[in-house]
Amino acid sequence: MIVEIVAVGTELLLGQIVNSNAAEIGSRLAEAGLDHYRQTVVGDNLDRMAAALREAMERADAVVVTGGIGPTQDDITREAMCAAAGVPMVFDEAFAGLLRERWARRGWEMPESNLRQAEHPEGAVMIPNPRGTAPGLRLRAGDAWLIALPGVPQEMLPMLEESVIPFLVAEAGGDGSVLVSRVIRTWGLPESRVAEMLGDLFAAAGNPTMAFLASAGEIKVRLTARAPDDRAAAALLDPLEAVVRERLGRRVFAVGGDPIEAIVLGLLAERGWTVGTAESATGGLLAARLTGVPGASASYVGSIVAYTARAKQDLLGVPAAVLEEHGLVSEETALAMAAGAAGRLPADVVVAVTGSAGPEPLEAPVGTIVVAVQTPEGAAARVLRLPPDRERARTLGSTGALHLLRRALLGEWWRT
Amino acid sequence: MIVEIVAVGTELLLGQIVNSNAAEIGSRLAEAGLDHYRQTVVGDNLDRMAAALREAMERADAVVVTGGIGPTQDDITREAMCAAAGVPMVFDEAFAGLLRERWARRGWEMPESNLRQAEHPEGAVMIPNPRGTAPGLRLRAGDAWLIALPGVPQEMLPMLEESVIPFLVAEAGGDGSVLVSRVIRTWGLPESRVAEMLGDLFAAAGNPTMAFLASAGEIKVRLTARAPDDRAAAALLDPLEAVVRERLGRRVFAVGGDPIEAIVLGLLAERGWTVGTAESATGGLLAARLTGVPGASASYVGSIVAYTARAKQDLLGVPAAVLEEHGLVSEETALAMAAGAAGRLPADVVVAVTGSAGPEPLEAPVGTIVVAVQTPEGAAARVLRLPPDRERARTLGSTGALHLLRRALLGEWWRT
Repeated sequence: MIVEIVAVGTELLLGQIVNSNAAEIGSRLAEAGLDHYRQTVVGDNLDRMAAALREAMERADAVVVTGGIGPTQDDITREAMCAAAGVPMVFDEAFAGLLRERWARRGWEMPESNLRQAEHPEGAVMIPNPRGTAPGLRLRAGDAWLIALPGVPQEMLPMLEESVIPFLVAEAGGDGSVLVSRVIRTWGLPESRVAEMLGDLFAAAGNPTMAFLASAGEIKVRLTARAPDDRAAAALLDPLEAVVRERLGRRVFAVGGDPIEAIVLGLLAERGWTVGTAESATGGLLAARLTGVPGASASYVGSIVAYTARAKQDLLGVPAAVLEEHGLVSEETALAMAAGAAGRLPADVVVAVTGSAGPEPLEAPVGTIVVAVQTPEGAAARVLRLPPDRERARTLGSTGALHLLRRALLGEWWRT
Repeated sequence: MIVEIVAVGTELLLGQIVNSNAAEIGSRLAEAGLDHYRQTVVGDNLDRMAAALREAMERADAVVVTGGIGPTQDDITREAMCAAAGVPMVFDEAFAGLLRERWARRGWEMPESNLRQAEHPEGAVMIPNPRGTAPGLRLRAGDAWLIALPGVPQEMLPMLEESVIPFLVAEAGGDGSVLVSRVIRTWGLPESRVAEMLGDLFAAAGNPTMAFLASAGEIKVRLTARAPDDRAAAALLDPLEAVVRERLGRRVFAVGGDPIEAIVLGLLAERGWTVGTAESATGGLLAARLTGVPGASASYVGSIVAYTARAKQDLLGVPAAVLEEHGLVSEETALAMAAGAAGRLPADVVVAVTGSAGPEPLEAPVGTIVVAVQTPEGAAARVLRLPPDRERARTLGSTGALHLLRRALLGEWWRT
């Protein structure tokens, strides 16, 4: 199953936004073991869009199109699909009724232009969009599938994961065989080191295949097997997974499954502990990631973001003597932040993060992030040396804090 | 002069990196008034790269290729250029000598693999690379130019600006016209309503053109003019911008420029005020967005994330009577959170957010977000009714809080 991506939008050509959708989709196609050899960007021009679609349809079994399915006049992906597939546009009365109802429920009158969203190429099936009003579309055109999704990532990604990838994976198994992937997730080693530790397995891999994927501080090892059925695929995957796990040891924290935020909240629930955070360098990002998990309030109580030195004293009670002797970016200050937060937040467990996120170095090289974890069983801190880039240091620093918390909750303190 | 971009790299297809090069190049092509209708990404595969180059050469007058010109075995852009243009590879003894000298000056012996960089398609001219070792290449192939640049942005961009854009503009043959865009940014109206309010202008638009873009709660109207020079473009854009601004009124908050987080921090710096946040429904996201701006610490002091009802009392001193009478999701509670935080954080201004983010409704329909702002000049609250989706409610809620803060800082309180 060869899949191409066509991203639609003059704003992409003009460089006003970066095509992060293609990267997100590409990463998920790879995880699903689907072949993906080309991505295209075209502007909001009917002839050029239709040409790009036709060309992609000749090379690929499925073309995922992002953007251009909203309600406004310059959203012309539906028209381009009609032109590329050679089918007329039809109007879906039932869907138009649903749209009117949805607006009425919010107490607004629907702008007539929204009715464009009830038009679709003849034969197209709607793909539910739980986060927005514009449904996606799936159209069989000759030998290929044309699949249109919104350009807004928050709407596009859930549709991709819930509808499109499962559909493509099922289609890929059209010869009766199934393609089953397992994603072994690791934290704490660079990608090149993981690749080195598994180098002989990678070289020998046939079925299952092996691939390495880096994402936001985690390195993933994807094993993909093709087999007559799930059971046969599992029989191929089990022994290889066992060897990979043995080689990588405690760096492996999960196979597939939930994001690390949800894993940590699950461990907290198991132990019956509540958690709070105390943040400096990550500035609320750790709290935002934990509270991004539905149901977080069962374990998560709150955070104190103390961005300035004064706030660390005022809000967290970090002793001036600790700040003076050890500085803002130190294990001692991180531990004092955790202890101070534990006395103020109604939480059993506290994770504290300080550090130097840049752009200017703060007492330590940019990218130095210090994490402390305090639980009813003890407390410990650790210095992480991350890339000297503000955004990456904040993201990888909050990921690191979540992983150190995970290991503390499992009783595997990284040092005693 | 039509220019296409072909980015080379399997890591782009796998989503391990985002194709920011294409956005940067696209933006500079537009500034230079060069036509640019398509971008392509292909992996490190000779046949597919050569095919992508040949197709682009048929549509365009010049093809800018990024990536694949380094020293290692998987850098095969030179080979793909030979295949696409039908010319042999030649070895440049003089350049090989220069490479050896450069390494010798640094006291190192050059790895033999680096000699690949002295190979180039017959007829190609080298493009100087002041920041790295791999020179770019320019090759006339049939009716088109093939221009290869490194994939590393820090090397590619100076080469683009110093060598490639001037060359392409000269080749474009003194049409000398420029393409100038203005992005008018609005908050507070749905996209379909903005499109309706400007429908006649959109329909009549020729030069400048008009387009609508939705991103994270903001609706943008992009005007693009083609003209002999910047001054003439401004003369075309000014009157249309004035009409758009007049129609949309105070919904327009900026033309181009910084993200709303940075705009708000700028307004705070102008007034000499510091800011803190008190968050419930957004769970740290507002703090994370503000501290994501480099230099945020000049104005931003910290946040109290009070996720549970008890934390709102313990950490923010919200009176139990207020919670009991008005509930967690109310203007009164948001104002009490702001007042409580103002007494605890060393900040002149406080923004507080509470609400029902889901998945289960909390005293109000999911998507109900309440924002309160307190400044030395006063305090006010407002209820936002956002989509009933946890992630969207949190994102659009924090965007709404930033915009209400902006209006309070400008003295345009949304109600008195």
